[in-house]
Amino acid sequence: MNFEILATCPVTGARAGLLHTAHGTIETPVFMPVGTQATVKGVLQRDLAGELDARIILANTYHLFLRPGADLIKNLGGLHKFMSWDRAILTDSGGFQVFSLSDRCKISDEGVLFHSHLNGDAHLFTPQSTIDAQLAFGSDIAMVLDECPPYPVTHEVARAAMLRTVQWAGIGYSHYLEQEAPDTAVFPIVQGSMFEDLRAECALRLQELDAPGYAIGGLSVGEPREISLEIAAFTAGLLPCAKPRYAMGVGTPKELAEHVARGVDMMDCVMPSRNARNGYLFTGSGRVIIKQARYRDDQGPVDADCGCYTCRTFSRAYLRHLFQAGEMLFSTLATIHNLRHYLDRMRGLRAAILDGTFPAFLTTVQALPA
Amino acid sequence: MNFEILATCPVTGARAGLLHTAHGTIETPVFMPVGTQATVKGVLQRDLAGELDARIILANTYHLFLRPGADLIKNLGGLHKFMSWDRAILTDSGGFQVFSLSDRCKISDEGVLFHSHLNGDAHLFTPQSTIDAQLAFGSDIAMVLDECPPYPVTHEVARAAMLRTVQWAGIGYSHYLEQEAPDTAVFPIVQGSMFEDLRAECALRLQELDAPGYAIGGLSVGEPREISLEIAAFTAGLLPCAKPRYAMGVGTPKELAEHVARGVDMMDCVMPSRNARNGYLFTGSGRVIIKQARYRDDQGPVDADCGCYTCRTFSRAYLRHLFQAGEMLFSTLATIHNLRHYLDRMRGLRAAILDGTFPAFLTTVQALPA
Repeated sequence: MNFEILATCPVTGARAGLLHTAHGTIETPVFMPVGTQATVKGVLQRDLAGELDARIILANTYHLFLRPGADLIKNLGGLHKFMSWDRAILTDSGGFQVFSLSDRCKISDEGVLFHSHLNGDAHLFTPQSTIDAQLAFGSDIAMVLDECPPYPVTHEVARAAMLRTVQWAGIGYSHYLEQEAPDTAVFPIVQGSMFEDLRAECALRLQELDAPGYAIGGLSVGEPREISLEIAAFTAGLLPCAKPRYAMGVGTPKELAEHVARGVDMMDCVMPSRNARNGYLFTGSGRVIIKQARYRDDQGPVDADCGCYTCRTFSRAYLRHLFQAGEMLFSTLATIHNLRHYLDRMRGLRAAILDGTFPAFLTTVQALPA
Repeated sequence: MNFEILATCPVTGARAGLLHTAHGTIETPVFMPVGTQATVKGVLQRDLAGELDARIILANTYHLFLRPGADLIKNLGGLHKFMSWDRAILTDSGGFQVFSLSDRCKISDEGVLFHSHLNGDAHLFTPQSTIDAQLAFGSDIAMVLDECPPYPVTHEVARAAMLRTVQWAGIGYSHYLEQEAPDTAVFPIVQGSMFEDLRAECALRLQELDAPGYAIGGLSVGEPREISLEIAAFTAGLLPCAKPRYAMGVGTPKELAEHVARGVDMMDCVMPSRNARNGYLFTGSGRVIIKQARYRDDQGPVDADCGCYTCRTFSRAYLRHLFQAGEMLFSTLATIHNLRHYLDRMRGLRAAILDGTFPAFLTTVQALPA
């Protein structure tokens, strides 16, 4: 993996770049659609590539490790082949899901022992085993195992989780270096909850690994959005300029711009796809809550400024009907739209950075409805 | 609407034709995918037209009358525009669903009073009102209101329902003729349960209307499949040669061929789409029940002889994973495959009729697994 910065906004520090991977080049800043179980829910792979032009998607180590299993995916030729997606894939370490989804998880220096939320089976995730799983997937970007504390949390607990995260990053990264895996890049994750001293210590110590990119974890865990943004900005500022910075689990459409303005290059979030399925559609002029009676006979598209298949083809009235009738086509059409909205927003931000108009563009974006 | 017969198999009576409608020409025999609520569940309209090349789909008057309403659809430019489908649409009369889905339905000479299964509201369907609803939709082919008795039923009850069906067909057809609706053709429906004398009487009396096509109703209501086929064959033989014959709610892949061999031109069934969602996939060598462990690491396509997107792109192992994970993408991919299988079967039958090899082709089809 190789990261090339093409332009940096002199006012904000926002960067436009190219991330070269074994599965294509990704224009940054980039939003990565979430494909938890080796599928972006409801969207055909060809629409993900064609309609949305997503260059990289995220998949989830915890889920895929449990089902269908890392060995199975490896034996079938890796995750790209398994899911017929020849563009880039980032996988998270599974740490976040172990803590949030599994039953009775028990943490130790060695790793985290947990029980599958699917069938109760016990599994141990270690810094090494989660790297092994991601190498079995053939991920372009893999994450080290981290401990992501809930919010709020005491400084003491946050510090212990941060130290464990640093320790595990070292173990996992060394384990990765011992393998022959030139097509997989591994990113450590900065933790430290909302404490700047902990974030700083974590960011500095992780840089000893000289990894090709760094993630900012522990965001979007229930904290106020302003604090989230402050911590992301603070942490981004501590990370090496020449390497991609990935804010995990971020964010709302407006937060995309705010994070880019603070030097973040990569983001992912279930919001566009999950909100889509729940009937919330993003537009340049605010959110469309499709179940509202006002859309009953609305012949217009969801967003007249959007070029997606959904907006080119269907009316709000039809989409409302599908939603009210509980038809799965609604989820597909809404997800296509929301993801296109996110990806187009990122493309707009990138274009503004490249042509030197980012500060003015940011002001415009900040003035949009939430 | 205009029906043109291009070839008739001299041995079986199977016909290949062209059905010209205001929304394109349909090659018959034809299988019509079911789009109950103005969507073929899980399939994008562009894939329905492109990937499957469906020329006509079926939508449901009962469901669309209740939600979003016939007036709304009319005000939005009709059903084709509402659902962005510029090819042909056939709508059923709603009679079958009134009897099978609604609460507390009460039948009289005037029509059928029923309570919506959605909210309990009372509605009256009459032979006139169901024509009006379908004209509001702008259907290419509309059905008259019929009374479809359950199975088994006494001769007396079946006869009463048949006589009512004939009476309603007369009223509905006269009402239709009073409207200016040159782009909508109306088909009466032959009832009579499994009694040949009733089927014969119904078929003959309905021909007094000189309608442009006739449907065979009252099939697939729980009767043994052999009886169903016998009655369809018997009824088809009583209908005018020059007009399309539509067997409603038919059938399994093998039944398609059997009905075509008995002079049926049009069929519809929820089986390919519903079975798809339940993990049952049709292939030339039998059914694939995707949840089976044998497919866990099966790298082959569902059907190596199928050219659909699903078979061109994804393995059985991936599809099994999606199914086991409850991912909606499974339903979409499986529905695309099953519908393509049905439509390709019909295209194969048609080609054999046209090139004079239908009897041999039928023998081959009959030898296939169920």
